[in-house]
Amino acid sequence: MADVMAEEARRASRVAQALDASVRTKALLSIADALVENESVILQENHKDLEAAKNMDIPAATLQRLKLKDGKIAQLAKGIRSLAEGEDPVGRRLRRTKVAEGLELEQVSAPLGVLLIIFEARPDALPQIASLSIRSGNGLLLKGGKEASHSNRCIHGVIVDAIERAGLPRDLIGLVTSRDEIADLLKLDKLIDLVIPRGSNQLVTHIQQNTKIPVLGHADGICHVYVDEKADPAKVSSICVDSKVDYPAACNAVECILFHRACVSSGLAGKTIADLEAAGVSVRGGTGAAGELGLPPAPSASHEYGDLTVTVEVVGSMEEAVDYIHANGSAHTDCIITEDKEAGEDFLKRVDSACVFHNASTRFSDGFRFGLGAEVGISTSRIHARGPVGVDGLLTTRWLMRGSGHVVNKDKDIDYVHETMPL
Amino acid sequence: MADVMAEEARRASRVAQALDASVRTKALLSIADALVENESVILQENHKDLEAAKNMDIPAATLQRLKLKDGKIAQLAKGIRSLAEGEDPVGRRLRRTKVAEGLELEQVSAPLGVLLIIFEARPDALPQIASLSIRSGNGLLLKGGKEASHSNRCIHGVIVDAIERAGLPRDLIGLVTSRDEIADLLKLDKLIDLVIPRGSNQLVTHIQQNTKIPVLGHADGICHVYVDEKADPAKVSSICVDSKVDYPAACNAVECILFHRACVSSGLAGKTIADLEAAGVSVRGGTGAAGELGLPPAPSASHEYGDLTVTVEVVGSMEEAVDYIHANGSAHTDCIITEDKEAGEDFLKRVDSACVFHNASTRFSDGFRFGLGAEVGISTSRIHARGPVGVDGLLTTRWLMRGSGHVVNKDKDIDYVHETMPL
Repeated sequence: MADVMAEEARRASRVAQALDASVRTKALLSIADALVENESVILQENHKDLEAAKNMDIPAATLQRLKLKDGKIAQLAKGIRSLAEGEDPVGRRLRRTKVAEGLELEQVSAPLGVLLIIFEARPDALPQIASLSIRSGNGLLLKGGKEASHSNRCIHGVIVDAIERAGLPRDLIGLVTSRDEIADLLKLDKLIDLVIPRGSNQLVTHIQQNTKIPVLGHADGICHVYVDEKADPAKVSSICVDSKVDYPAACNAVECILFHRACVSSGLAGKTIADLEAAGVSVRGGTGAAGELGLPPAPSASHEYGDLTVTVEVVGSMEEAVDYIHANGSAHTDCIITEDKEAGEDFLKRVDSACVFHNASTRFSDGFRFGLGAEVGISTSRIHARGPVGVDGLLTTRWLMRGSGHVVNKDKDIDYVHETMPL
Repeated sequence: MADVMAEEARRASRVAQALDASVRTKALLSIADALVENESVILQENHKDLEAAKNMDIPAATLQRLKLKDGKIAQLAKGIRSLAEGEDPVGRRLRRTKVAEGLELEQVSAPLGVLLIIFEARPDALPQIASLSIRSGNGLLLKGGKEASHSNRCIHGVIVDAIERAGLPRDLIGLVTSRDEIADLLKLDKLIDLVIPRGSNQLVTHIQQNTKIPVLGHADGICHVYVDEKADPAKVSSICVDSKVDYPAACNAVECILFHRACVSSGLAGKTIADLEAAGVSVRGGTGAAGELGLPPAPSASHEYGDLTVTVEVVGSMEEAVDYIHANGSAHTDCIITEDKEAGEDFLKRVDSACVFHNASTRFSDGFRFGLGAEVGISTSRIHARGPVGVDGLLTTRWLMRGSGHVVNKDKDIDYVHETMPL
């Protein structure tokens, strides 16, 4: 069942790719209009999910995410319209080379193919993801949580009707409503090019461990802030507090603050801990700091709290901080606070993480804040896309060559020039 | 054993990345010198492999590849020196954004991490791959075929001694000589970022099917040439013959020629078949052409001969040709021959393959011919790198942000500008 949908989605993606960009743009505007027009039906279906959820054992936070709040549909439509107004990312020229006289090569962006998005609860994720997928010309399979099944079915219907009116094949976006379980979908590595899990760490980890399809995402977000001996105390306090308190459950929240030992003797470590505590943060100590600063011990050197708790550790040098981060971090986002420009640049050069910051909160690690437009996810994989990923992460490339009868013939008669041409 | 080597290689890669580019350049020049200086020892060890191979059941073609021919070492050294002279690919700025006043973001290229190269026979692959890996700052694990074990051990020793003299850690390049089998290496998906198999289709397929580590490569090369009704007969003959005859065993050799039906009635199909046969090619017919052109039947619609045999099929339109290619090709390289510019552009737009050509031999699908410098491989994967892959395929990116105490604080007090800055 899902395999047939995947094949249809690929076929539809090839149709979508060959059409003029204006058709994909029209489809996005059509979705935005249809969502607004069908708001009351969508909310009715969402209400059914909320009613059904009352009889299920669903955590309060999930219920929160399940509910489409007032103004949500209008906000979604606005986001989709702004995506429609943006530049078309498909078929963009990335590179152009004169290979030989009369023989030209170009590399252009192309849809990745077929995406599988597995998401929990949030029905508002569906239109967001579907729009990004259309913008990038991809086929899409959606597998939502059963707690949102009424909402998802309704929104999916509204969307495929809308794209069909605009001239795109409705098979481009398939909602997996059959009994196919996630395990079956994850076996379709010949048919699906990328899986994007949107949900809990457990969901992401489960998917990463159970498929050969590349996974775009991150299971952990163990971010560090290293406070150098030459840090400005005012920046230390505000960056440490913001990195934790702004949104403690986010993957880009800080989990461990490393102080240079000089900050302990200067009192900066103690003052920062007091500032964190004043902001509602519980502070725990790593094996070193627990003794030196008299803090309750952290569960481990590599722990993601996801709440208003943070580990503090003491290191003897930046070298030691970098090693600590490599050994215990998740290569997501790590930050140095220092007024020593050279130390800052050295840290930026040496820390092998997706995002490395100097004197800025780890919370900036985000597709919107980076200016990527819509965010597909944050990847801690090193392959394909790394860090906050925008619509570019849903693209691959193709090489196009134009000649006039050129042959290789053992490279005997051809004069390669390999000149870079303007795009 | 291999897991320890992988961890050491990652550590060494981080050291290499933090060093100045000139150290990596020096290491490459040091390898080139050392290979030349140690030529006689290397050839002695290669001779041992050749002697041992006589008692093994090794095909003649493998023996050919096993032997380091006269002048090979000098040629390798020359290639490595030219890589050393090229631009350093690590830490290159790819994107720069002013996020807000005083807050700047940049995306830079970075080593992928740890590569695993599994190669058969050819000992000359070792220095080539090791040099590309050093150029891109990656850690490397090498697993060679046991038939080349003396050559590999000797060359590996020469290389790690050379890089150590230049100031790089020798752990950067590990030769897996222990009893660890390929199966064990392929389980190290937490420690290895990319596998590059260099060898037979069977090796590549086996690796793709047995690991969760991303694989850069291609198992099949089922390339098509479509001869449009408006094709220039002279170009048809030369491109079809070259695409097959230039190197029939290559993955970019044509396996199936599709003729528009008009070319059958005009006699162009018959003439091309005669030209192919005159060039030594056996021509077989697809289900349509077998009857229409009286050809012996091809084994299947999707067959890679890898020798001087080709399938011919007849289609009614370009539409049908494109569908045929999508259904039976391997999305490697496909070509249209036509004087109709619009049809050519349409084909380039619609065929969903890594390389799509207009009026040029499929044999151009190659990293050197594309002007990518050294070739890492040709990828038919859609993720990360697609088509001929140069040293860029061994890189990922990192995001670096520089602020002066910037915090997010619910985005209340920050004015995002997201201005693209010059690189």
